[in-house]
Amino acid sequence: MKKTDTIFKNAIVLTMDEEMHQFARGAVAVSGEKIIAVGDEKEILSKYEAEEIIDAGGKVLMPGLVNAHTHVPMTLLRGLADDLRLDVWLMGYMMPVEREFVTPEFVRLGTQLACAELIRSGVTTFADMYYFEDDVAEATAEAGLRALCGESVMKFPAPDAESYEDSLAYTRKFIQKWKDHPLITPAVAPHAPFTCTPEILQACAALADEFDVPLHIHIAETEFEVENMRETEGIPVVPYVKKQNLFDAKVVAAHCVHIDIGEIRTLEQSGAGVAHNPSSNMKLASGFAPVQKMIDEGVNVGIGTDGTASNNDLDMFEEIRLAAFIAKGHSGDPTAVSADLALTMGTRLGAKAIHLSHQTGSLQVGLSADLILVDLNQLHNAPSFRRDPKNIYVQLVYAAKANDVTDVMVNGKFLMRERELLTLNEADLIAKAQVYAEKIDAFLLKREGSLFSKLIALGGSSEEESFEVQTKVKLAKQVDVASVLANSGIDLLYSRHYREYDVYFSFDDPTQGRLRYREDEFLDDKGEMERVRGRLTLIGQASKEEFTDDVLLSRSRYLAPATNSLRFYREYFKPQSEQVILKERRRWLIEFEDTKFYINFDKFDKPDLGNFLEIKTRTWSREDAKKKANLTSKLLDCLNLGESATITDDYIELV
Amino acid sequence: MKKTDTIFKNAIVLTMDEEMHQFARGAVAVSGEKIIAVGDEKEILSKYEAEEIIDAGGKVLMPGLVNAHTHVPMTLLRGLADDLRLDVWLMGYMMPVEREFVTPEFVRLGTQLACAELIRSGVTTFADMYYFEDDVAEATAEAGLRALCGESVMKFPAPDAESYEDSLAYTRKFIQKWKDHPLITPAVAPHAPFTCTPEILQACAALADEFDVPLHIHIAETEFEVENMRETEGIPVVPYVKKQNLFDAKVVAAHCVHIDIGEIRTLEQSGAGVAHNPSSNMKLASGFAPVQKMIDEGVNVGIGTDGTASNNDLDMFEEIRLAAFIAKGHSGDPTAVSADLALTMGTRLGAKAIHLSHQTGSLQVGLSADLILVDLNQLHNAPSFRRDPKNIYVQLVYAAKANDVTDVMVNGKFLMRERELLTLNEADLIAKAQVYAEKIDAFLLKREGSLFSKLIALGGSSEEESFEVQTKVKLAKQVDVASVLANSGIDLLYSRHYREYDVYFSFDDPTQGRLRYREDEFLDDKGEMERVRGRLTLIGQASKEEFTDDVLLSRSRYLAPATNSLRFYREYFKPQSEQVILKERRRWLIEFEDTKFYINFDKFDKPDLGNFLEIKTRTWSREDAKKKANLTSKLLDCLNLGESATITDDYIELV
Repeated sequence: MKKTDTIFKNAIVLTMDEEMHQFARGAVAVSGEKIIAVGDEKEILSKYEAEEIIDAGGKVLMPGLVNAHTHVPMTLLRGLADDLRLDVWLMGYMMPVEREFVTPEFVRLGTQLACAELIRSGVTTFADMYYFEDDVAEATAEAGLRALCGESVMKFPAPDAESYEDSLAYTRKFIQKWKDHPLITPAVAPHAPFTCTPEILQACAALADEFDVPLHIHIAETEFEVENMRETEGIPVVPYVKKQNLFDAKVVAAHCVHIDIGEIRTLEQSGAGVAHNPSSNMKLASGFAPVQKMIDEGVNVGIGTDGTASNNDLDMFEEIRLAAFIAKGHSGDPTAVSADLALTMGTRLGAKAIHLSHQTGSLQVGLSADLILVDLNQLHNAPSFRRDPKNIYVQLVYAAKANDVTDVMVNGKFLMRERELLTLNEADLIAKAQVYAEKIDAFLLKREGSLFSKLIALGGSSEEESFEVQTKVKLAKQVDVASVLANSGIDLLYSRHYREYDVYFSFDDPTQGRLRYREDEFLDDKGEMERVRGRLTLIGQASKEEFTDDVLLSRSRYLAPATNSLRFYREYFKPQSEQVILKERRRWLIEFEDTKFYINFDKFDKPDLGNFLEIKTRTWSREDAKKKANLTSKLLDCLNLGESATITDDYIELV
Repeated sequence: MKKTDTIFKNAIVLTMDEEMHQFARGAVAVSGEKIIAVGDEKEILSKYEAEEIIDAGGKVLMPGLVNAHTHVPMTLLRGLADDLRLDVWLMGYMMPVEREFVTPEFVRLGTQLACAELIRSGVTTFADMYYFEDDVAEATAEAGLRALCGESVMKFPAPDAESYEDSLAYTRKFIQKWKDHPLITPAVAPHAPFTCTPEILQACAALADEFDVPLHIHIAETEFEVENMRETEGIPVVPYVKKQNLFDAKVVAAHCVHIDIGEIRTLEQSGAGVAHNPSSNMKLASGFAPVQKMIDEGVNVGIGTDGTASNNDLDMFEEIRLAAFIAKGHSGDPTAVSADLALTMGTRLGAKAIHLSHQTGSLQVGLSADLILVDLNQLHNAPSFRRDPKNIYVQLVYAAKANDVTDVMVNGKFLMRERELLTLNEADLIAKAQVYAEKIDAFLLKREGSLFSKLIALGGSSEEESFEVQTKVKLAKQVDVASVLANSGIDLLYSRHYREYDVYFSFDDPTQGRLRYREDEFLDDKGEMERVRGRLTLIGQASKEEFTDDVLLSRSRYLAPATNSLRFYREYFKPQSEQVILKERRRWLIEFEDTKFYINFDKFDKPDLGNFLEIKTRTWSREDAKKKANLTSKLLDCLNLGESATITDDYIELV
């Protein structure tokens, strides 16, 4: 009799190995961190004696589940913002909140909360991608879970790095620190092709290759990403990253929703693994990944939950079931992704996809003791048919629930016994998470209370001069402003020609001001469009009261480049009403008595307000503003418009 | 202070009423079977005093969920057969097992098992359709749940009726018995347009109309159904059932996956409710129902689990989540079917869809006290954001689990308190269900052990004569058999001309015999195809040994009309190998010395075996067979083929 640490007996053992061996009354022997025997109970008990013999009471004993793609710290953002378009969700909520709240402390707590949920639901290994990944690794190792931890690198400043060079330096140190850890495998995680430059992708691949660690990346999640790539690079996403030598590294490609058969073959040939995320792809309406095709071509496809901010949980039982469901629903073939295949994707194939199958994913002698007990003797899983070996995978995939997991062991150490967590304090984590949620709610409520904060939250906006001098004269249609100016003797510094498409958002509370979304179409000499510029302007309420001259006013103006669509801003700002104004503008910058003014000649298309000449200038100085206001009437005289009625309202007020 | 029976206090009350009223610290007062007050805790407690005041401890108090379409007794068949095509699943497994096992006892037990699972997962009302619905109603009423019970009617014999006239008579009695019950609403359930005749649909509508009870039916579940309807009737399914006056009744239409905008409007105008079944539609690959469109057009769309045999559970939390997920995934719009709408579909809208909103589906004064407590203070639902009223629906829909339901009350009576079932004995039900599963497994194993039983299970097969006389002569290509026969003086009784497409299924165990799938294309005088006949023949191993004359053999033959596709039989019988034989056959029935023989003239297309003349006859009598065997050589002489080498093998043996 050989001695060992632990024997599990009286279990339905599902090895999930290549041959899908099952033992109806099976046993598994564990010594230290490793599995040393798997087989029939009688055989194992006749060869081994153990410190502890655990009677599984007829439960299923199987490898722990592998969550092939997630962002564990985002668990603190579960339910923060939902039922939104990806850009609104990401730029309107996730990024502003991350900018404000993501710190090492946030990351540690989020990781702990996630680990508790992962253990409870039978996950023993996960592949992560986030910021401060060193803290993710620390918290995970303390909780006792196995993880592939990918430090994010991207072209934008991140919560943990001012520049991508900083991220790369951080990642190098991070890899050096963790590369021989029994539970943690460090990785580099260039966020996505469209959030990285080619140089970043190349540097990440080289770094992963140098240390022989995996590279974790988002690939072809949305159709938009693929269309953009085709437009700018003329090729789809997989060939593009291949061109950046990405496949020099062991790649874990998350999503792969919009890839063609050629790309699938490239993934297979380059040994890349794919992490399929059913809930996230459905909830964010990203599309349906060609899972059965990838499997048929020999790609290692695992299953991931993605972050809880887009899922909204870490329940791999649900994801495995959905992987089977949506493959059938989407292909129209109910035999696609059968239960046994789905469960294999959630275990052995998932481990292969994240390049950890030498450690975990199946019950085989020599692999780490990463295993779970699942109780199928539940109301929602009764009765049990047993005439076909596949019946039990069907029970696990189509009817078992995360809560049916009773015991979890990782690397030979118990993390949960009889549904009790051994390495984490659940109540404490929930309470601490709630403190964050309340802070984040307060931050967002404050922001949502003000247009200004919502604009600022988008980033990139800047404040403009606060004093404005403006006056308008309505012109007869036949007036040719260009020749009037030419004949006036005024210095013309330059001229521009646009077509301007303005949408004004108005809100219940007028003190919030108005938001203007403007597209300037720059026109050339022949009136052909050269380029388009989008700008967003928050125009505060004017205080005309403090001036005797109504040409002059004071108001706040914030300007931001409008890099998103009108639709995005509409969903993000939720205006009470909208007003569209379309006009053609010729603009001159002139110098009159040593003072610069803009002269705009505006012809309205919609609504049909007629033609206007507008004189405009801005300044930070009140005295300067007064001086300029006084000059405008002289300027009008000079343009032979001194007798005309002047208007000081904005166009939007004339509508 | 008014006196009442029960007050729930310290709850987050979600009324799910038209205005989606919420009370962050709310209370509900129950008197007898009814809700008598809903509102802020302080207000309720200042007006009422109760026998029992229940502190909900900050849990969510909301209406019980409404499962708008299911077949509760089928819970006993959960996990019986999965990952199969609809026809294989239905005709190969469900129907044979139902024919063998469905009795009142089966139905009662299945209903009790289902009720236990439904209560645990927060369902207080369900809409059923099955056989022996009187027993479903009895068991449901005993368990204390509310249900719409639809007795199935269809053109085929059913487990509880020899004919549809019997079903209609049963249903009439059933409705009369239950129509005033506080928990059970009886209904008639014509199974589906394609399993009913127009007369059945009309009779069901008239019956429902007579008693003013709902009519429960499957509508447009598969594309195949719709294509068939268009082909045979020239119209889609909804106009077809409208033509049968179906909408004279209050219709609950399950599925409605493949309906167009016109049909959606018809449903709306006729006040029909729709039961959407996300899991079932995905798992059986039926398609994606146009849920958001139906909602936009004002149709009352509820959510159902369908039967557990195709789901594989009764978890409405999962279904509600999937209703939101797949609406987004399928439309590409992540704002489609938001969490609050999905939850409304699972409660108030579901009750409307099954025509029970006057009783249940929301927390409103005067409605029945059908309510549940849900504990959101769970690891998998932490943290809780609360800045937007929609946050809580998001938590319930995207992260809450069936197991988070702690208490269930129906009609003022508790069915579960602190996760303990009060009206059903769980362990007992699981044990009894297992006895059935083992019996069914044994039945199927026995069947699967024999091709014969699998063929019989399909129904319609008949045994053929056991003695066969057959001999063949290979002919030169130029031989014209028609003129040979004409010149022989033999009586030709009739002739046929076919093109025969044969697929032979072979199996590991040759004693099982071979299965032949044959399509006979009947050709007219010009060689044009008149019609096609599909036949399935199970050909046992021949025992030639007992005869001296090898023209004669004895073997079993079972013949069945092949009403399903080759693909169906391939998936159902799972042959080890397949062989295709294509030939043209001219067949004559002749009379020779007062004995009838078939003469086949076979020209092979695939494989190219050449041309053959075959003499064939069959009989139940051994002596008759011997006599006929002796006659064949005389017959060959008469055809001037007496000198030719004869062959007695089947064609398949020559390949």
